[in-house]
Amino acid sequence: MTGNAIIGQAGGPTAVINQSLVGIVEALATRQRVGRILGMRHGVQGLTAGQIVDLTDLPADQLNAVADSPSAALGSTRDKPDEAYCQRIVQACQKNEIKYFFYIGGNDSSDTCRIVNELAKASGSDMRCFHVPKTVDNDLPINDHTPGFGSAARFVATACMADSRDNASIPGIKVNVVMGRSAGFLTAASALARQNENDGPHLIYLPEVAFDEDRFVQDVAQTYDRLGRCQIAVSEGIQDASGVAIAAKLIKGDTDAHGNVQLSGSGALGDLLSGLLKDRLTTAGSKPPRVRADTFGYLQRCWPDASPVDQSEAREAGRFAAGLALEGHADGSVALIRTSTPGPSESYQVECQRIELSEVAAKTKHMSDAFILGYNDVSRAFVDYCRPLVGELPTLATLS
Amino acid sequence: MTGNAIIGQAGGPTAVINQSLVGIVEALATRQRVGRILGMRHGVQGLTAGQIVDLTDLPADQLNAVADSPSAALGSTRDKPDEAYCQRIVQACQKNEIKYFFYIGGNDSSDTCRIVNELAKASGSDMRCFHVPKTVDNDLPINDHTPGFGSAARFVATACMADSRDNASIPGIKVNVVMGRSAGFLTAASALARQNENDGPHLIYLPEVAFDEDRFVQDVAQTYDRLGRCQIAVSEGIQDASGVAIAAKLIKGDTDAHGNVQLSGSGALGDLLSGLLKDRLTTAGSKPPRVRADTFGYLQRCWPDASPVDQSEAREAGRFAAGLALEGHADGSVALIRTSTPGPSESYQVECQRIELSEVAAKTKHMSDAFILGYNDVSRAFVDYCRPLVGELPTLATLS
Repeated sequence: MTGNAIIGQAGGPTAVINQSLVGIVEALATRQRVGRILGMRHGVQGLTAGQIVDLTDLPADQLNAVADSPSAALGSTRDKPDEAYCQRIVQACQKNEIKYFFYIGGNDSSDTCRIVNELAKASGSDMRCFHVPKTVDNDLPINDHTPGFGSAARFVATACMADSRDNASIPGIKVNVVMGRSAGFLTAASALARQNENDGPHLIYLPEVAFDEDRFVQDVAQTYDRLGRCQIAVSEGIQDASGVAIAAKLIKGDTDAHGNVQLSGSGALGDLLSGLLKDRLTTAGSKPPRVRADTFGYLQRCWPDASPVDQSEAREAGRFAAGLALEGHADGSVALIRTSTPGPSESYQVECQRIELSEVAAKTKHMSDAFILGYNDVSRAFVDYCRPLVGELPTLATLS
Repeated sequence: MTGNAIIGQAGGPTAVINQSLVGIVEALATRQRVGRILGMRHGVQGLTAGQIVDLTDLPADQLNAVADSPSAALGSTRDKPDEAYCQRIVQACQKNEIKYFFYIGGNDSSDTCRIVNELAKASGSDMRCFHVPKTVDNDLPINDHTPGFGSAARFVATACMADSRDNASIPGIKVNVVMGRSAGFLTAASALARQNENDGPHLIYLPEVAFDEDRFVQDVAQTYDRLGRCQIAVSEGIQDASGVAIAAKLIKGDTDAHGNVQLSGSGALGDLLSGLLKDRLTTAGSKPPRVRADTFGYLQRCWPDASPVDQSEAREAGRFAAGLALEGHADGSVALIRTSTPGPSESYQVECQRIELSEVAAKTKHMSDAFILGYNDVSRAFVDYCRPLVGELPTLATLS
């Protein structure tokens, strides 16, 4: 039976989410039994509103240019559909004679895909539903890592590397706030910035390790005493021992459709930590130390210098999902599985595998204990894990 | 007479300030009558404390690697010496038998250089004092533009370009805060991000144009109504009609040695504007619009992907200053003067000229009226002026 295919992108965009889109399109385009290849504008939000674009006849050079561009070319959505919404999705698919349904996204998007799949099957449809992984947070289970993470990690490592030189040239205390609501992988990637002894970041704070203000101030004071400067990488999602986000204590603002407090798109956490350090590290009669905070913000997920490894893996994940659908699988998600042992980047190998939607849907992976070193650092094992994913980083020279 | 040379770097570092350092070193190294080539650790702060390094015998490959690395390799300083401090500088120079004094920096650094020069001459010294321009703010007079600006402008344009795609994929209002205390050039460079109709930034706010909150809210509302989204570039230095910095109204914190309020290294202005828009654009009974703010921060001046044009001009400015000293000039500053008319980048030409220290010392250039369009944009003339300085920017593709 011939049928149409439809592809959607959801959640926070990445620098390589369009690679996966194009991977699906190009793999489908080789098969005659696929009818039209359609795209949802802004994911299921556009699909249910009839906002659909036809991708079937796009020339290869345009597809390649889109693949190389950051952000979701189809538009994305933060809608988290309930069952009634998912019913409307299934109806929209029937109306458009969709046989192949692809949804590129993270935890929540895989859950949407799972519900749509179940409802479609229950209604007697033979629509095949596939999830393609995407998230800069790197928090999808089973996956060794997730498309989008490597490029964001590349940005964070490069930023901390350059900022550490800046911090060395005008010494002071510098707080850099990194994305990641509940998983610390992206903040941990800042460790790749270290090229020489005493390079920053000197302290790394992850959501997985309970954040204690007193210990934080003490850590910073010790580094500042030793080096005359201190560069800190801190996750936007750091939590206290009872699991309350430090940022949530001070930000009254937005919650998203999932009830989460807005963490990104604000400098509040950095400014809070900066103020804390100024207050606590000023001794009587002396000037406060120079403390600055930067929040890396949305550039982490859209900076147009993606990791080449991440680009090719995201493309392959899309192709692989299309292959599963065309080979007759009824549903599933794609997982990136590392097949090499940790070690030099040259020996790094990875493959795509099919996993069940239920294995990834709405689940979150955290940094393992083996990746965490004490209260304020990551382990060598994490660095070995992360290094092959980011591509070649710049080398910054010093006079000494 | 043979004498030693000494070089210092001062003020906020840039991505190419080491090009100027290496330009001076390599030009001096060709001449036998120069003795040792020394470097001040952290500018005049290190010089007066006896913290000096010898650069004479560094191999060319290390010099080239340092030139290509962002941030001040010698270390920088924010010290703004008074006359007594400058006397100590002159004494330190005499102690080290300095005949050639080079100081790479912005407005304040050129003023230090001017005072040192005057005191040295008054004391009967024949020390030759030269200033080499550097500032991401691009606010030195006489100069067509300043080394460091092109690379920072490249970062800002690239960031706004990628962030505009992000903003299009999850529509909302996005405020991006750009460096620049009193000159808007760097914020204005965000206009280079526009590749297609409706690309951001849709609104640009400069320190040179009095900022009015009501008009700002109205501008944003109009764009948001028209496009369903709005990306804004705003200078950290925006001021009200009476010249008071908007950020100063809310930031109690630090002032620097020059009595300036700390603008960079805080997300406060972005969060203030974000909160203002949320409050004022929420209509009764409806959810507030999605408003996010990023403050680009220190990455603007240290991101390790410098503009190639900026790199070569910064190198040449250093070489030229060394040449002036060796040719027998007693003092001066280097100015970059454009010799081509505005137009395509291919015909762009620039040359170095000697100017008097007094012409640049402690003076500030602002955006000319011809570069400003209305209350919230820059002119085509500015884009033509700026484009050759940033190198080739990425091209981001869309599906439409």
